[in-house]
Amino acid sequence: MECVFCRIAKGELEHWKVYEDERTIAFLDKYPITKGHTLVATKKHYENLLDVPEEDLKALIAAVKKVAKAVYESMKCDGFNIGQNNFSAAGQIVFHLHFHIIPRFENDGIFKRAPEEKVDGKEMGKIAEKIKKGLG
Amino acid sequence: MECVFCRIAKGELEHWKVYEDERTIAFLDKYPITKGHTLVATKKHYENLLDVPEEDLKALIAAVKKVAKAVYESMKCDGFNIGQNNFSAAGQIVFHLHFHIIPRFENDGIFKRAPEEKVDGKEMGKIAEKIKKGLG
Repeated sequence: MECVFCRIAKGELEHWKVYEDERTIAFLDKYPITKGHTLVATKKHYENLLDVPEEDLKALIAAVKKVAKAVYESMKCDGFNIGQNNFSAAGQIVFHLHFHIIPRFENDGIFKRAPEEKVDGKEMGKIAEKIKKGLG
Repeated sequence: MECVFCRIAKGELEHWKVYEDERTIAFLDKYPITKGHTLVATKKHYENLLDVPEEDLKALIAAVKKVAKAVYESMKCDGFNIGQNNFSAAGQIVFHLHFHIIPRFENDGIFKRAPEEKVDGKEMGKIAEKIKKGLG
């Protein structure tokens, strides 16, 4: 079976489209967390953030900003979350790169910040070194 | 009091820096949700996604991708979430534009998808129209 978002990008699958440009497409999430929950995806198939080339990624974030402004203003919400999940352990369900725009309202009780993990200063230093090394 | 992330960007405040380029800086979240939880911010002060100029936004997402790859590989996690909160209703705490990179592990129980709001097809159509109109 072909990827659902590829089929949406090709117009083969019914969807509530709100925006489209050369490289990206935005449509309502079929299972909205709040009203106006919108997805912005690349037209080309990339699995996640790690395999998208820079040019398409930059076009995608520009579209996210543009659509988020329209969502924020037209839904008259009090704020919004941008989210993007990579791999199933992070809750990714459709393996085609996309950003979520989720309208938020004061005290709607959605997405409380998860409790912090206690990490002492020494370990924080070690973690920072590890990531720095990973950056080459 | 000056913005905390502006002070970090200027090197005035102690932090665990992992990356820096001309326009962006990445450092460990002082209150990590999981080990390796990293923030990537613009050096210039913008409040949120709505007021960042495109050039800085594109530099920021390129840095997010670069740092996320290093976090993913060096923390040996199973996935990661990218998050960016706008306005206090959405959980924004520091009002200086930044993206979260949050390492995730299979069955860590963090960030379950919030339950969907039931919206019928007719209303979905109306919402899509409203957002399209907002896009001008």
